Amino acid sequence: MTNKKEINAAIIIIGNEVLSGRTKDLNTSTLAQWLNSLGINVQEVRVIPDIEKTIIDNVNELRNKFNYVFTTGGIGPTHDDITASSISKAFNLEYGFHKEAFSILEKYYDPGEFNEGRQKMAKMPTTANLILNPTSGAPGFYVENVFCLPGVPSILKSMIGGLNNVLVGGDPILSKTINLRTYESEIAKSLTDVQINNNGVEIGKLSFF
Amino acid sequence: MTNKKEINAAIIIIGNEVLSGRTKDLNTSTLAQWLNSLGINVQEVRVIPDIEKTIIDNVNELRNKFNYVFTTGGIGPTHDDITASSISKAFNLEYGFHKEAFSILEKYYDPGEFNEGRQKMAKMPTTANLILNPTSGAPGFYVENVFCLPGVPSILKSMIGGLNNVLVGGDPILSKTINLRTYESEIAKSLTDVQINNNGVEIGKLSFF
Repeated sequence: MTNKKEINAAIIIIGNEVLSGRTKDLNTSTLAQWLNSLGINVQEVRVIPDIEKTIIDNVNELRNKFNYVFTTGGIGPTHDDITASSISKAFNLEYGFHKEAFSILEKYYDPGEFNEGRQKMAKMPTTANLILNPTSGAPGFYVENVFCLPGVPSILKSMIGGLNNVLVGGDPILSKTINLRTYESEIAKSLTDVQINNNGVEIGKLSFF
Repeated sequence: MTNKKEINAAIIIIGNEVLSGRTKDLNTSTLAQWLNSLGINVQEVRVIPDIEKTIIDNVNELRNKFNYVFTTGGIGPTHDDITASSISKAFNLEYGFHKEAFSILEKYYDPGEFNEGRQKMAKMPTTANLILNPTSGAPGFYVENVFCLPGVPSILKSMIGGLNNVLVGGDPILSKTINLRTYESEIAKSLTDVQINNNGVEIGKLSFF
């Protein structure tokens, strides 16, 4: 376990629907498993409301603290989709139509269907890099180490593969699951001993009842 | 909408198993719906690892920022269950056997079964208030405005009702769900107009694809 290079990340789930309990967050699990496979360790997840100042403060705090930050949600066509404009402010970049994104969406929709709401999805930091969306056209984007993805789980899932060559991972995180039908308290001491005697090994547990 | 008293809360999910993506967090949704029913608005959720300093820092930051803080996870019998000792340090309180918790657990287990790991579950800030556990004996606890619950969703669910008379809620949050089969972008402008013209109304949306 010498020279272990750890690359870490934080996830910011943007959306009142998770905070209210109406929706269960599925994106953390998708992102964390994918990032682990690239050797990137998720160290914090935050769920925050669609409030501009909150988004800016959290993005700025976490992008300085972690190698990568992933946001989900808030890049759709409606009034409460304020992630793209907030990210522009966080980085002090111009917010407006992204040429390439506009052109992608213009081709994606039939003539006459590319209305104001849909055009809004081409608005972001004008110098951002795009994350292509094979499912529904509207791209995500990234600026420096902050990657902005949509909130709909199936769409997010279809987009992340495009980032495999953009992200720089660390040593792969190896994990093994062992299923035991026992009482937690009966194996507590052995687990502690294994962990103490094996540097770099982390033992997790998941209880059922 | 005059004199609206808003009571807010944050949730801290403690556990590497959610950060690694192995487990999907179900407790946020349970807690948020229950708190909403009491007129308490969840404004932030954080998922953090089982690291003492991280737990202490997050608890201290959020307990000063929000009316209530709820933690889940890390109060079981094993080596990585460090929530109770971390909360003691966050509040600068003595960590040790809680008399009432010890007595509850001693009665709960058959003679000879109350081993070291299980006794650990009676360790917490010695002056904490207990949150009774009708499912599996081991109580949660609270200190001032910080409430510590277990991570197993079914056990957590069975315990929160005991807090209904402890928490002071705000005005109830009324919500109505409307199902529409349409395109987000086609109702975007109408939703914005309704929100702008109705102070205190928040419109959320949940898209499917």
